[in-house]
Amino acid sequence: MPFPRNQWYVAAYGKEIGSEGMLARTICGEPIVFYRTSAGEVAALNDRCVHRRYPLSEGNRDGDTIVCGYHGFTYAPDGRCVAVPGQTRIPRTARVPVYRVVERDSLVWVWIGDAEAADPQAIPRAPWLDSPDWVTVRGMEPLAARYELLVDNLLDLSHETYLHGGYIGTPEVAQTPITTEVDEKAGVVYVSRRMTDVECPPFYARSTGIDGRIDRWQDIEYHPPCLYLLHSRIAPTGVAPLADGDDPRACHAEIVYAITPETETSTHDFWMVSRDFAREDEEVSAFLAESNRTVVLQDVRALDLLEKVIAAEPEGYQELSINIDTGGLAARRLLKRMVEGA
Amino acid sequence: MPFPRNQWYVAAYGKEIGSEGMLARTICGEPIVFYRTSAGEVAALNDRCVHRRYPLSEGNRDGDTIVCGYHGFTYAPDGRCVAVPGQTRIPRTARVPVYRVVERDSLVWVWIGDAEAADPQAIPRAPWLDSPDWVTVRGMEPLAARYELLVDNLLDLSHETYLHGGYIGTPEVAQTPITTEVDEKAGVVYVSRRMTDVECPPFYARSTGIDGRIDRWQDIEYHPPCLYLLHSRIAPTGVAPLADGDDPRACHAEIVYAITPETETSTHDFWMVSRDFAREDEEVSAFLAESNRTVVLQDVRALDLLEKVIAAEPEGYQELSINIDTGGLAARRLLKRMVEGA
Amino acid sequence: MPFPRNQWYVAAYGKEIGSEGMLARTICGEPIVFYRTSAGEVAALNDRCVHRRYPLSEGNRDGDTIVCGYHGFTYAPDGRCVAVPGQTRIPRTARVPVYRVVERDSLVWVWIGDAEAADPQAIPRAPWLDSPDWVTVRGMEPLAARYELLVDNLLDLSHETYLHGGYIGTPEVAQTPITTEVDEKAGVVYVSRRMTDVECPPFYARSTGIDGRIDRWQDIEYHPPCLYLLHSRIAPTGVAPLADGDDPRACHAEIVYAITPETETSTHDFWMVSRDFAREDEEVSAFLAESNRTVVLQDVRALDLLEKVIAAEPEGYQELSINIDTGGLAARRLLKRMVEGA
Repeated sequence: MPFPRNQWYVAAYGKEIGSEGMLARTICGEPIVFYRTSAGEVAALNDRCVHRRYPLSEGNRDGDTIVCGYHGFTYAPDGRCVAVPGQTRIPRTARVPVYRVVERDSLVWVWIGDAEAADPQAIPRAPWLDSPDWVTVRGMEPLAARYELLVDNLLDLSHETYLHGGYIGTPEVAQTPITTEVDEKAGVVYVSRRMTDVECPPFYARSTGIDGRIDRWQDIEYHPPCLYLLHSRIAPTGVAPLADGDDPRACHAEIVYAITPETETSTHDFWMVSRDFAREDEEVSAFLAESNRTVVLQDVRALDLLEKVIAAEPEGYQELSINIDTGGLAARRLLKRMVEGA
Repeated sequence: MPFPRNQWYVAAYGKEIGSEGMLARTICGEPIVFYRTSAGEVAALNDRCVHRRYPLSEGNRDGDTIVCGYHGFTYAPDGRCVAVPGQTRIPRTARVPVYRVVERDSLVWVWIGDAEAADPQAIPRAPWLDSPDWVTVRGMEPLAARYELLVDNLLDLSHETYLHGGYIGTPEVAQTPITTEVDEKAGVVYVSRRMTDVECPPFYARSTGIDGRIDRWQDIEYHPPCLYLLHSRIAPTGVAPLADGDDPRACHAEIVYAITPETETSTHDFWMVSRDFAREDEEVSAFLAESNRTVVLQDVRALDLLEKVIAAEPEGYQELSINIDTGGLAARRLLKRMVEGA
Repeated sequence: MPFPRNQWYVAAYGKEIGSEGMLARTICGEPIVFYRTSAGEVAALNDRCVHRRYPLSEGNRDGDTIVCGYHGFTYAPDGRCVAVPGQTRIPRTARVPVYRVVERDSLVWVWIGDAEAADPQAIPRAPWLDSPDWVTVRGMEPLAARYELLVDNLLDLSHETYLHGGYIGTPEVAQTPITTEVDEKAGVVYVSRRMTDVECPPFYARSTGIDGRIDRWQDIEYHPPCLYLLHSRIAPTGVAPLADGDDPRACHAEIVYAITPETETSTHDFWMVSRDFAREDEEVSAFLAESNRTVVLQDVRALDLLEKVIAAEPEGYQELSINIDTGGLAARRLLKRMVEGA
């Protein structure tokens, strides 16, 4: 399946793009070079010189322009070529495509598709990522697998029990049924699993300090194609939110994934864990960062293997789906609609 | 050329499949997971979970069942799924294909093809492999070349002189003409080379202790597609078998290869050397194991190289064959018949 | 684009082919084994045994014959098979193709095409390469890129400023316009850049000992497909050749590249630097060898990257050319004519 076009994708964390240097990243098969201008804006240019296609990211910055490392063609942030070697006249067509960029919630979003269709209002939000009320750890792992496999993976958390035992998986995750809802109009998939009086996995036991049995809620909100939110609530068994909806006695973790296709068979796997508990505790930050990275790498290993399985298998292989797959199947349906509608 | 189907292939040595753990091996392009049940039987299941195709061999055993490492789908030795996550009802179609297995002569044979056509009587025998009258050393080397190249290699031993000089090759092997016979009905190729009063190669000089010139017989018996037997007789020059056929004054080595395609361009190269001499001498065992492995690796290097040559050559490349190739050409003909007849 | 056929290509330096051993090298997709006979002639045979295609270069020499390392087929320098295993009769058709070779100016040229069309007079000359009046350093780097990218690279030296700054590049190279001429009949492209009163790059400053500003001439002479000559003249600013054409007060470097396709996407990048100054100075030799190798490896890195860019880009990608590209475009046109005319 091709990528959904005319969509926003997370290209980078804001901090990855500094006032010096450039960041080269391929998004949905398009090679892009990102850099931050002196005004603090993120420029995003096609990472190929118009002359002999040399990657611009191999060159150098000269103030707000970038200079090709092969023959010195020089580009402004708007893609126009402003200098060429051996002559003063610059060809009218010397211009590389540029990409619409929006920086929001600590994420750099890039629009892949027709520029005139780009609507920044359509970008889904994750405001806790740069809120002072939350503390966030994050990372990005390259995945040698198609993004659809990561969508499948994240929409069906029953795999935590088997792939992530000892970290976030306990027997109850796989045993507890889920409820799935799809907002067809908004194009959002909701998957919910509410576990009562269950074991607390090490990931939360050690970070929240909660001793004993817990109520554990996993409320997934997937905004295809790119943004995946897991609202995670951990509380001692029986402790409920207040009548007004406030929930001060529980611990909350907002787990965010940005699922950004690199090529048809590789993916940028951005992961973030925000929390409203133990916010001053740097040991907890380090523990969550290390643990979540381990969990992500367990997925990466499994999905990289699945990609190889798919590459070697005969055409027309059939899967079998059960109740736990309702979220994943809904996500596939929305993605297919996006691809066809684009 | 595709693989001959409806055939028995050696999948493993019996000892490779223990009462714990699993063995993953691809046979003729089919990924299979093998394990031994508490009853001592070898189970062979398609190594792909019905759910999301994750290799079952990445999971865990639970008694006689195996549990998928991704979402916990659980299978019995007959391929039926006996547990799935999040629900008690198990879909009727949740079943992975299983393979017919026969364990015989220390080898685990697997049937690739239509199960109802499997006839264990058709498996060729090599009884010395688990006879107390013989001592066997063995190994398996992965070959990054199509199995046909190994068939060619083993049916024409004149290559011993050039590729295996210093081990099993002497000038006389290449110089001595062969006789070839084909049993068309049984589908067996016989190639025979009888050398009289020749140099004893180090492989046999050091293991048999025979000093001086020898008579050396190489009697090949190839049962396509998988089993290759080399009956090797070494005796001091002039020492003949007795009138009744007994041959107590000679040393005999039974060299067995099982040639099992992994993919179209890779092969499991199982090798075994059984002997009826110096049976108590562990130094001889170690020497023969090390020497034969070296010889096999010389072949592996040459055939891996040939596979690369074939991959890069233009279509329609023509070989030239001479007398030494009669065995190999007969083998190719029988294999082609098997492929077409299957 | 396929390779120009019916052309001479540099296969090796004469010194690479000794009186012992063999040299295996693929030229324009053809695997060739080179060796030097006892008469000092270079033999060039197709590097595939007629029997089972094993590379002859993996075998051994036996005087002026070579013996296949797999089954011992033996070949004379003219390609005829003179011995086979197990029989005395040699099949009439047992002969490998041979290649026409000419050794000249320290280079081993091989003819790729129809043997009867080979004309040694058509080989372009570089006599300084084995003249006692010149001192030469040389090397060869494997390039994982199509030869066309190296032609482009060498015909447009404006890239020296960006890719080879600190070695041979100065700002003036990219700034100075070029003149381009094409001898359509002889099939030669001339590109000339005459720089007056410019900075002396480290490559020449340190080797010539010239202190201060220089006049620097770059006169390219490209004989497609294989031979590229760069006549480089370095002199203190204002120092001109004598009226009779003699030029004793300048330093001259003859930079030669032989651009020999290995496969469609890889190239043998032979480079040589001859000089008529500091001829006795071994430190200068070492410095030029090391510096030029560094420069070549900078190109190799850039072109290997470009080859990957091309492999991943969509069909029909369009480049933009400017004045500096007139030489490269002319070269492409001549190469295209060669391919079509062959």
